[in-house]
Amino acid sequence: LKSAGWAPAPPLTVNGWRAARSLWLLLLVSLSVCISVCRATSSREEDSAMENIVTEKKAEESHRQDSADLLIFIMLLTLTILTIWLFKHRRFRFLHETGLAMIYGLIVGVILRYGIHVPRDISNITMSCHVNASPATLLVNISGKFYEYTLKGEISANEVNDVQDNEMLRKVTFDPEVFFNILLPPIIFHAGYSLKRRHFFRNMGSILAYAFLGTVISCFIIGLLMYGCVMLMKQVGQLGGDFFFTDCLFFGAIVSATDPVTVLAIFNELQVDVDLYALLFGESVLNDAVAVVLSSSIVAYQPEGDNSHTFEVMAMLKSFGIFLGVFSGSFALGVATGVVTALISSYNFTKLRDFQLLETALFFLMSWSTFLLAEACGFTGVVAVLFCGITQAHYTFNNLSPESQDRTKQLFELLNFLAENFIFSYMGLTLFTFQNHVFNPMFIIGAFIAVFLGRAANIYPLSFLLNLGRRNKIRSNFQHMMMFAGLRGAMTFALSIRDTATYARQMMFSTTLLVVFFTVWICGGGTTQMLSCQRIRVGVDSDQDNSGSERRSTKQESAWLFRIWYNFDHNYLKPILTHSGPPLTATLPPCCGPLARFLTSPQAYENECQLKDDDSDLILTDGDINLTYGDITVSTDATGAHTSGGPAFAGAATSDDLDRELAYGDHELVMRGTRLVLPMDDSEPPFPDHPNRLRM
Amino acid sequence: LKSAGWAPAPPLTVNGWRAARSLWLLLLVSLSVCISVCRATSSREEDSAMENIVTEKKAEESHRQDSADLLIFIMLLTLTILTIWLFKHRRFRFLHETGLAMIYGLIVGVILRYGIHVPRDISNITMSCHVNASPATLLVNISGKFYEYTLKGEISANEVNDVQDNEMLRKVTFDPEVFFNILLPPIIFHAGYSLKRRHFFRNMGSILAYAFLGTVISCFIIGLLMYGCVMLMKQVGQLGGDFFFTDCLFFGAIVSATDPVTVLAIFNELQVDVDLYALLFGESVLNDAVAVVLSSSIVAYQPEGDNSHTFEVMAMLKSFGIFLGVFSGSFALGVATGVVTALISSYNFTKLRDFQLLETALFFLMSWSTFLLAEACGFTGVVAVLFCGITQAHYTFNNLSPESQDRTKQLFELLNFLAENFIFSYMGLTLFTFQNHVFNPMFIIGAFIAVFLGRAANIYPLSFLLNLGRRNKIRSNFQHMMMFAGLRGAMTFALSIRDTATYARQMMFSTTLLVVFFTVWICGGGTTQMLSCQRIRVGVDSDQDNSGSERRSTKQESAWLFRIWYNFDHNYLKPILTHSGPPLTATLPPCCGPLARFLTSPQAYENECQLKDDDSDLILTDGDINLTYGDITVSTDATGAHTSGGPAFAGAATSDDLDRELAYGDHELVMRGTRLVLPMDDSEPPFPDHPNRLRM
Repeated sequence: LKSAGWAPAPPLTVNGWRAARSLWLLLLVSLSVCISVCRATSSREEDSAMENIVTEKKAEESHRQDSADLLIFIMLLTLTILTIWLFKHRRFRFLHETGLAMIYGLIVGVILRYGIHVPRDISNITMSCHVNASPATLLVNISGKFYEYTLKGEISANEVNDVQDNEMLRKVTFDPEVFFNILLPPIIFHAGYSLKRRHFFRNMGSILAYAFLGTVISCFIIGLLMYGCVMLMKQVGQLGGDFFFTDCLFFGAIVSATDPVTVLAIFNELQVDVDLYALLFGESVLNDAVAVVLSSSIVAYQPEGDNSHTFEVMAMLKSFGIFLGVFSGSFALGVATGVVTALISSYNFTKLRDFQLLETALFFLMSWSTFLLAEACGFTGVVAVLFCGITQAHYTFNNLSPESQDRTKQLFELLNFLAENFIFSYMGLTLFTFQNHVFNPMFIIGAFIAVFLGRAANIYPLSFLLNLGRRNKIRSNFQHMMMFAGLRGAMTFALSIRDTATYARQMMFSTTLLVVFFTVWICGGGTTQMLSCQRIRVGVDSDQDNSGSERRSTKQESAWLFRIWYNFDHNYLKPILTHSGPPLTATLPPCCGPLARFLTSPQAYENECQLKDDDSDLILTDGDINLTYGDITVSTDATGAHTSGGPAFAGAATSDDLDRELAYGDHELVMRGTRLVLPMDDSEPPFPDHPNRLRM
Repeated sequence: LKSAGWAPAPPLTVNGWRAARSLWLLLLVSLSVCISVCRATSSREEDSAMENIVTEKKAEESHRQDSADLLIFIMLLTLTILTIWLFKHRRFRFLHETGLAMIYGLIVGVILRYGIHVPRDISNITMSCHVNASPATLLVNISGKFYEYTLKGEISANEVNDVQDNEMLRKVTFDPEVFFNILLPPIIFHAGYSLKRRHFFRNMGSILAYAFLGTVISCFIIGLLMYGCVMLMKQVGQLGGDFFFTDCLFFGAIVSATDPVTVLAIFNELQVDVDLYALLFGESVLNDAVAVVLSSSIVAYQPEGDNSHTFEVMAMLKSFGIFLGVFSGSFALGVATGVVTALISSYNFTKLRDFQLLETALFFLMSWSTFLLAEACGFTGVVAVLFCGITQAHYTFNNLSPESQDRTKQLFELLNFLAENFIFSYMGLTLFTFQNHVFNPMFIIGAFIAVFLGRAANIYPLSFLLNLGRRNKIRSNFQHMMMFAGLRGAMTFALSIRDTATYARQMMFSTTLLVVFFTVWICGGGTTQMLSCQRIRVGVDSDQDNSGSERRSTKQESAWLFRIWYNFDHNYLKPILTHSGPPLTATLPPCCGPLARFLTSPQAYENECQLKDDDSDLILTDGDINLTYGDITVSTDATGAHTSGGPAFAGAATSDDLDRELAYGDHELVMRGTRLVLPMDDSEPPFPDHPNRLRM
């Protein structure tokens, strides 16, 4: 409404454009000034550090330096946002915000690396105190005063001199664990929380196959190919250090995590076929989890005895056990926290809705504690957070007040946006500021070929096998598109930067960076071309699509596994964890009466009659989707609008029903910075209280 | 609406209550289990550290331990939230959430201190390598491998053994800078962003007097009294270390920062007199800033020569200069960033509103960069963030899209809530886990008396002086209430924990903790009693209040300084920085025509006619407040509803006008976890498009 008056003023807009461009240039200049000032400050301060100044002041300086370094990143992000806005405004789809963040990162990296020279920092002292172990804390007696030092990490002997020389560049280098423990969790949680559940569950079998089987296949294919490449390099004499088969497999695991955020953004914008979207998104979300656990199991592969890099059955079985244990443990933890949150927000604390701030804070803290709990127990926090996000979206979300639904969505959307762009701009920066790059042309070429073949060995054979069972085939153009959309992103980067101690890992890291750059820029930028080249339909409304002819065929598609799960979920889990679904007294066998009465929420009883009506209504108006949203929250549906009557229906659920239910959830979960407003201009208003849900 | 069906079900609610209580107990038990498990893990792992294991594993263990420690805090916060909900539900006002967080922190602290015994950690090694300086980074050659260590801080000689013994307790101890650089900024920004601007500006003179003069008076009174106390202690022989006059002054500065968050929460709930609220809130917000800068100036007081604790005029002048420089620098930086954000969101990037996520992210990043910029320049980030918040609320907020207005408010509200409760629960914890407490009864008693007298010397004389100039006197019961509401909180804690190296600082820290506990529990808990004891009106609607008889008298109250500022703001700043206000072409003298045209936003031109109407309408309906909201955003007002016509009015503004404008801003800025919905049942709807503003 507010923008209504702006459109018919083109000359002013042009004026505004010029101003925008100048502001943008101003920011760019200010960023470079900021960088050089920060650097200058740093050098000046380090010069004056000649004298034996107090520790406190030293710490203050270091803090100031840290602030300046962080400021560079904030400026980078700000610049990225402003430029994205320009791109969005102009509907420029060749460069996604993540690709842009990388470019800006690269530019700042070049400036830092070659633009500024800082004199050698003399305050580093190498002490050769021979101790047996490397303690976590060190007390050093310096001229009678005790100073405490904490362990930062091991440095290989040939880098000792570099450490002193390049203090400046190392200062803009974050602790790699920051990525894994601070930036990745919100991204992964957001992915789980915003999963388009209807299409995800409809294609669950295929998604699981791609994510689990596919990632393992890809990992081993890439590992084997890279091992061949490394062997060749050894023959030619191009290998400067150790590179074992486990290293190759580790490389395979980390580059198997796809992150098609760029592609999905374009899919969203162009409204590409929802099944393709679901397949790609679901695969990428889950294969991140698989890749994390896979890589940690490979690291855990340690045969006993002297030669620690031979093949040993026991060690492999142990690794496999670790994979299963860590994955299922993280899964269980994530789901458990989600369920606990759902219980808290559902049963006893129904009045918690009146205090939205408390509710949101509780939701946030519970989701975060999943991560910490998993890490403290030795599981993988990132995986736990993913499944926690999915559980929260499926159960807890329905119990939240509308305000908290908005708040949590927006909060995690913002966190995801910031974290993602931060990681990508850091990626660009690190190409120049990272000290121990090992660029080996043979390895890089080998890696690109291996990544390509690994992806092909994942998609095509699995698609063929899946098509044997699917009625709604994954067509060959979909397969090509999935092949093309195998971008590597944040997860691959975080996994590869986590440990860059050995020669092998350094070579992997450098190569991974190039793989990410290439796939994000080339594959990400070429998505629209690829879509039109493969003749994939765009502009498909996710709901209209299914009420058409295709829908009938999809209905039978739902796998038996899924159908069993859905019935269990609808009849038992949903009634226990949310206010929706039939009361347990109706679904449990009569012998479990007391238990059912204990577990059923008061609201479920109160709304029992409406529920029946709604459910029966869903059956009667089977063909019409647009007016029948499922039974997500009882209070929404309990309007009396659907009182056409009918037999009590609780025990069984058709797949239509579930389709619709999940579709309704999707409506609430669309998160692209624009609020979805349901069309209210129907001839008969289906929900008189709907405006209230949309926060009036 | 959703809760409509719940009220008439009391037996079920009782049932729910029982379940709630059991859940609460369950959480409490799980917390203690979690603590002991974490502790046990830690001890087991440290036992197995006997052998010379790899650094990597060591780091992993340490990470796991960190996760477990953080988890304890998350559990504490969760528990606090659940209990707060119980209290809010029962309208229990004797204990605020911050007080509760402290109690839980205390309990966990006791458990950690006395409940669990961890065997001595043998992995700490004291090395006596005699070096001249204490470098920030240390490279240690351990059995041929190089390890990097970073400086953590100095440890006094008598603690060297403690360091090794109490590794466990030290692990739950955060780096003090975390409080100052991570937890404090969102709290302070939120305070600035949620400042009730109308009442703040109306009482600006008094607030500035209390905050600046009052804090300085309080600081020096407390410093002098404490110096007397310390002298006495030295006489009696109770002093175990050095304690200089600068230390006393420093103590005065840190305990002069009031934080009446508890009191204000109750004021909010009971709708206490708005002027009293504004005085207290404004004072506490600003005196935090003053106390920070004051304490850093006192630390900077370093006379030259041998005896570094004598009085020297030059050093004092330098300190005073630092105070002025740092304060004005931080102020300027904060305002500058706010203005830049306002400009970006106002002029060139008007279409930025279409991408709410980008807008919110930009707002967040710009606000954060204020902090970093100030810290990098050597100013005080916290102070800069405060003024940035005020500027953002005054200008940028009006340029944001309604979605972003909600998002930013909710985001900072959540961050504030979490940070505040975290600090208070950590405060409770630290009473038992901090290693170097120095509890000196004499000093503590002296401090309590000094704090009381310092507050009295701030409030009563200043109120007397202010009453000479104020027509709307600060009555004596208001003065008593302000005296009583001088709680100490997060800022005092953060300042005192920042440096606990010397004996004096340790004694200060311990005493400060007790002062905070006492004031938060006793003064915070007794607020309702004090209110009724002082016969202070409650249930005052902030708007109704002013349309009454009091209002006419307040009108003349507005100081000339304020009036000048308001006119400048209304005529020049608002038109430049937001879309509201008259276009500059109307307010600037004719000679500045081209400049005015350049600076005026296109929207201001387009809406010029409506603006005039609105403004004139404000004059015509002078007595009626409820229907005339000011000219905050042109697009809101440009509805054509107020087309009563009238002469062009732009150059001057009455104080009624400004009252109303600020009042309108308040409506948008009320942030208590409940959404304010403007009454829409007026006979004539003033804004047909208002529902749109409230996110339809």
